[in-house]
Amino acid sequence: MIAQRVTLITLGVADLDRAKAFYAALGWSPAEEQEGVAFYQLAGQVLGLFGKEALAADQGRPGAELSTGAMTLAQNFPTEAEVNTAFDAALAAGATPLKRPEKVFWGGYSGYFADPDGHVWELAMNPFWPLAEDGTLTLPGAG
Amino acid sequence: MIAQRVTLITLGVADLDRAKAFYAALGWSPAEEQEGVAFYQLAGQVLGLFGKEALAADQGRPGAELSTGAMTLAQNFPTEAEVNTAFDAALAAGATPLKRPEKVFWGGYSGYFADPDGHVWELAMNPFWPLAEDGTLTLPGAG
Repeated sequence: MIAQRVTLITLGVADLDRAKAFYAALGWSPAEEQEGVAFYQLAGQVLGLFGKEALAADQGRPGAELSTGAMTLAQNFPTEAEVNTAFDAALAAGATPLKRPEKVFWGGYSGYFADPDGHVWELAMNPFWPLAEDGTLTLPGAG
Repeated sequence: MIAQRVTLITLGVADLDRAKAFYAALGWSPAEEQEGVAFYQLAGQVLGLFGKEALAADQGRPGAELSTGAMTLAQNFPTEAEVNTAFDAALAAGATPLKRPEKVFWGGYSGYFADPDGHVWELAMNPFWPLAEDGTLTLPGAG
């Protein structure tokens, strides 16, 4: 039994300074930094940037070539206009566009970009998932 | 400018039923299910299981072979004993152990497993990061 909770999301990066510069350009600032790692406070959880080689070693498989793309992060917004603004900000920060925001079959609006290490972010508006004032999301069917 | 927030974490999976069975064996239950996708309520955010091929198409790169390992999720616990119990539960659910929980150089205690699709979870106790009663984490240096 493991609670339905994520305390920390870690992004393995090839160049910590490059990754920090990208997230700084998005407006992020770290709450804690140590040699080789930077931690950002999210809503009740933390996101860490950590060297990919160190991450592989920490996982107990030193030398493994870790890759990404099949686990993605999304940030939702109340409106399509906010998705567009955020997507433009990501491109200005140096993100690689994968799919520009567009209306999608499930009734929402969504685009994808990759950060400098290929980590994939979706920016979306989902009309069926209203966000709380603080940006958190509780599913209509939860609880 | 993009807020420091993750609304949705998506795990691309090869076999949705297999992935759902694994997370069910951990004690997770979906708050919302639709054809080809299952959503779990976390603390103020959502985790989705979604077919890998569909995820690649949604990202605007149909046919891409998405992989994983360089973006990881961690769940923190107040004690080493709880890390051990959760790690055993994950193995019993069919997880692949990557590194059994052990004391680590930064002063904590941590192990890693992979879910049936290779998505990497860390289970950890970090004495420098006290958890709130509800399991959320606010860094000492945040805010």
